[in-house]
Amino acid sequence: MVQLDDLDRAILRLLKEDARLTISEIAERLNRPESTVHFRIKKLQERGIIDRYTIVLGEALRPKAVALVYIQVETPIIEDFLEKYINHIMKTLSILPNVLAVARSTKDSLVALVGEENEEKLNKFIDETIRVLPTLKRVEVIPLTELVKGGDVIGFLVRV
Amino acid sequence: MVQLDDLDRAILRLLKEDARLTISEIAERLNRPESTVHFRIKKLQERGIIDRYTIVLGEALRPKAVALVYIQVETPIIEDFLEKYINHIMKTLSILPNVLAVARSTKDSLVALVGEENEEKLNKFIDETIRVLPTLKRVEVIPLTELVKGGDVIGFLVRV
Repeated sequence: MVQLDDLDRAILRLLKEDARLTISEIAERLNRPESTVHFRIKKLQERGIIDRYTIVLGEALRPKAVALVYIQVETPIIEDFLEKYINHIMKTLSILPNVLAVARSTKDSLVALVGEENEEKLNKFIDETIRVLPTLKRVEVIPLTELVKGGDVIGFLVRV
Repeated sequence: MVQLDDLDRAILRLLKEDARLTISEIAERLNRPESTVHFRIKKLQERGIIDRYTIVLGEALRPKAVALVYIQVETPIIEDFLEKYINHIMKTLSILPNVLAVARSTKDSLVALVGEENEEKLNKFIDETIRVLPTLKRVEVIPLTELVKGGDVIGFLVRV
C-alpha cells in the first residue's frame, strides 16, 4: 500500500489541476518552505507516484460524437483461436486514430472508445469499419452524449 | 475547423509525452528556433488547443480492478421525472471517489467507470452501492481486464 501524507496529496492535487505551477507557487499556496515542496515532488517522481506530465487538448481537437463499442467475439471451433481473434481485433482497432481507447473485457469480449466529428460520421465508422470485422458475434453501441465526471478525458486521450 | 500545421502537431505530440520539456529542448528536437517554438506554444495556449497541463498518477495509486457499469433507469409513469431520476443518479455516482467517470448515454441510460483495489471490493461496491440505487431498471457490468490503448487513462482520472 502506498504511503502518502496530507502534504503529498495536496501537492498532487495542485499539480493535477495545473502542472505548470512552480515550486515557489506551490510552497506559497500550501504555506510550506520551498525546500520541502521541492523534496516532496522529487520523491513523488522517484517513487513513480507521479508517472508523467502531460497536456490536455482543448475542445477544438476533441471529437464531438463519442461512443463506447462493446464487442463480443465468436468462439471458434478450435477454442485456442479465440485468443488470436481477439488480439487481432484489439490490434486492428488500436491502430485507428479515431479509436481513443481499447480494453479487453472477458475471455471473448472487448470495449473500444470511439470518437468522430459528428454522429453521422461516427455511425458510419462503426458500421463500415467495426461491424465488418471478421469473427464478431455481437456489437453494442453505447453513445456517450454528456460527460458528467471525468469530463476532459477525451482531451487527454485524443491524438494529434 | 481547427488549423494546425506540422510544427504545431509536432509540438503538441512532444508535450503530450512530456509536458516538462523546456522550449529549448523542444526547439532542439524539432530543429527550429526557440523563438518560433515559444510563439507557437503561446498561440496554442491562447487558442485553447492546449487546454491545460496536468500529471498522470502512477500504478501505485491506480485501482487494480476497473469496470464499466451501464445503467438503465426505469421510465416513471410521469415521464418528466425521468430526467430528474437520471440526474440524481449521475450526481450520486459522481460524488463517490471510486467512480472515475460518469457519462450520460441515451434518454434513460448512463455509464460509469468504477475502480477499486481488487475485484472483490469492486463487486461489493457495485452490488452494495450501485445496484441498490432506486429507480434502476437494468445494470450491466463490463469488467476491463487489460487496457490496450489509452492505457494510462486511469492514472489521469484517479483522484488523490
